[in-house]
Amino acid sequence: GSAVFGIGFSENGAANPFGSTDEAYAIFETYLTFKGTTQSDNGLEFGYSSTIAAYDTDGGLNDDGTSAYVSGAFGKLTFGSVNEASKVAGLPDIGGLSGLGVDNVAEALWAGASHNVNYKYSAGAFTVEASSSVGKGVDSNGVGVKYDTGTYYVGLGYADDTEATTVYAGGSFSGVNVKAMYSDSNTANQKAWGIYADYTTGALTLKAEYADNDIVTDAAFGIGASYDLGGGAALVGGIASVDDNTRAEMGVSFEF
Amino acid sequence: GSAVFGIGFSENGAANPFGSTDEAYAIFETYLTFKGTTQSDNGLEFGYSSTIAAYDTDGGLNDDGTSAYVSGAFGKLTFGSVNEASKVAGLPDIGGLSGLGVDNVAEALWAGASHNVNYKYSAGAFTVEASSSVGKGVDSNGVGVKYDTGTYYVGLGYADDTEATTVYAGGSFSGVNVKAMYSDSNTANQKAWGIYADYTTGALTLKAEYADNDIVTDAAFGIGASYDLGGGAALVGGIASVDDNTRAEMGVSFEF
Amino acid sequence: GSAVFGIGFSENGAANPFGSTDEAYAIFETYLTFKGTTQSDNGLEFGYSSTIAAYDTDGGLNDDGTSAYVSGAFGKLTFGSVNEASKVAGLPDIGGLSGLGVDNVAEALWAGASHNVNYKYSAGAFTVEASSSVGKGVDSNGVGVKYDTGTYYVGLGYADDTEATTVYAGGSFSGVNVKAMYSDSNTANQKAWGIYADYTTGALTLKAEYADNDIVTDAAFGIGASYDLGGGAALVGGIASVDDNTRAEMGVSFEF
Repeated sequence: GSAVFGIGFSENGAANPFGSTDEAYAIFETYLTFKGTTQSDNGLEFGYSSTIAAYDTDGGLNDDGTSAYVSGAFGKLTFGSVNEASKVAGLPDIGGLSGLGVDNVAEALWAGASHNVNYKYSAGAFTVEASSSVGKGVDSNGVGVKYDTGTYYVGLGYADDTEATTVYAGGSFSGVNVKAMYSDSNTANQKAWGIYADYTTGALTLKAEYADNDIVTDAAFGIGASYDLGGGAALVGGIASVDDNTRAEMGVSFEF
Repeated sequence: GSAVFGIGFSENGAANPFGSTDEAYAIFETYLTFKGTTQSDNGLEFGYSSTIAAYDTDGGLNDDGTSAYVSGAFGKLTFGSVNEASKVAGLPDIGGLSGLGVDNVAEALWAGASHNVNYKYSAGAFTVEASSSVGKGVDSNGVGVKYDTGTYYVGLGYADDTEATTVYAGGSFSGVNVKAMYSDSNTANQKAWGIYADYTTGALTLKAEYADNDIVTDAAFGIGASYDLGGGAALVGGIASVDDNTRAEMGVSFEF
Repeated sequence: GSAVFGIGFSENGAANPFGSTDEAYAIFETYLTFKGTTQSDNGLEFGYSSTIAAYDTDGGLNDDGTSAYVSGAFGKLTFGSVNEASKVAGLPDIGGLSGLGVDNVAEALWAGASHNVNYKYSAGAFTVEASSSVGKGVDSNGVGVKYDTGTYYVGLGYADDTEATTVYAGGSFSGVNVKAMYSDSNTANQKAWGIYADYTTGALTLKAEYADNDIVTDAAFGIGASYDLGGGAALVGGIASVDDNTRAEMGVSFEF
């Protein structure tokens, strides 16, 4: 499992998770994951994963993603809370707690119906996947392809409900990671893009992100940092401007 | 825990779990069970069981049954999500995923208030039980008795809210299992009945079921099959006609 | 985890948890707790705790308290479902199942916004803590101090939303435990107080409690008993008069 907690700040309370107009608020999120697998006689793997989340904002227990899969030489077929295939690579958030939301600006054209079936096939550095919303009364499908050497990657995704094509690219060199994406939605005639970079030196990781799209008035940008405390714990934080609103968060994250 | 996933089909979307009119839909159900027991100094056993379920249809976590009991020489007293005592034996579903619902037609007169207290006493092949809804503002009680040799069983149940008497019988011979039930509700002046049979040869199990009652226009019937893949995994599926609507499902089930 | 179940009685159904007017009702509560901790390189402890509860009254799964903390030489900082700092010591309930509510009468002036951040520092027998509701649009803070030798304790708490000052005191001698509290709310110009005592001899514990406040018409009082069965299991029960309504409960509790 994992948990984060700390203090957030949002200008005019714009992103206050409690729905109040307070600019400062407590951040608290916990994730407890259960996994189970079994193997059939012919070598297929069947697996289950479910994450129970608690957020300070509602006081209840939430399903943060439950899925089941079967995988083998044919690939991997997953049902439940699945990845939408067009999202073969996104941008990380900065801040490290609940997230400052700069990445969401770049990923704005991803929005669409959630899918419940995903099929993925990998061969060497290549991965192709397709996903769909089956039975929900909407016609929503996606496909994606990714080539990832471990040092760099390129990817391409297409979602048919928004007719959005997204290209992805990124790479690592000398402690620097860079990730970028660009989406073009034919239905909405809108574009969205963003770029993220981080640099790690010793226990410290510095992060920066910039994103813009044709929906918001102002581009979003921000910086973040995390300091590794060992044992899976870290000091984390960041500050950003999202649609001209200043947001910040600072606290700790840990795994258990 | 256990999980099932696959594809379902329901004519005109009559049984689409997402509430859409799509005839084909994704089936996804997972069950994660936690159990705990302790023994008192005088040899009583106290136990707890709770199952957290996720269904594709709602995206949340559900209580699929939580109960606590104390058992000893006096029998077993259970509180929480308990069996209604009149249901000493029901019919299995066919299909193996979310179920095709043929059994529900035979069990239609079971409907009534859910109970929260159950007492059961077993002696050899005999089991008697009584259950009740205590404190919920309704008067609902049930009693049941079952004689089960392991090779065959007969049972009798009575629910006082619907004044429904149900008789049960079944047995196994040469790889064939047969289960039948017949209900007669005095309050509603209605009858319901059904019969189920399965046959296992090697890894394959074939199933058939027929049920009718005085509420539906058309009798329900169907066939199913499961193929054991080893390791607790199986290919499962079935097709049925329920109130003149065709339903089918096919997929996999596994335990982890 | 732990569980309780049994039968409750409330005159005129006043406290029936199902919302019906039945005087007798089933009591059923289960608690399943998950914990996780990790240690950073500099010796800080990060921890997580979450309790999933099931109550007969709603049929769902509930978050009975999820929190995360970091502790070290500086003290302990907790986020999530935290103790309100003014509540450094309360009164136990009698009855042992869902509780008869006599203690609630003494604790009536505790009411206020729930807090989501708590800081606690302990040195020897002294503990000081402060807590607050951060970001929820209300101004609610509390402080508390407690001196606890293990044999006796005194405490003082202050909540600024109700301007309520509470003093606590208690001690143990010869198998007898006594706990008392007295609150005075400046905002409401109301007082509340209560005293609890229990006596243990062998497996049997007898309990008595008396509480009153300026809100209710009649003082509340009652007695309870628990009989230790070994293995974490106990027979428990009690009877009380709360605002002139008779309440009783009897059943079992156990840990697993």
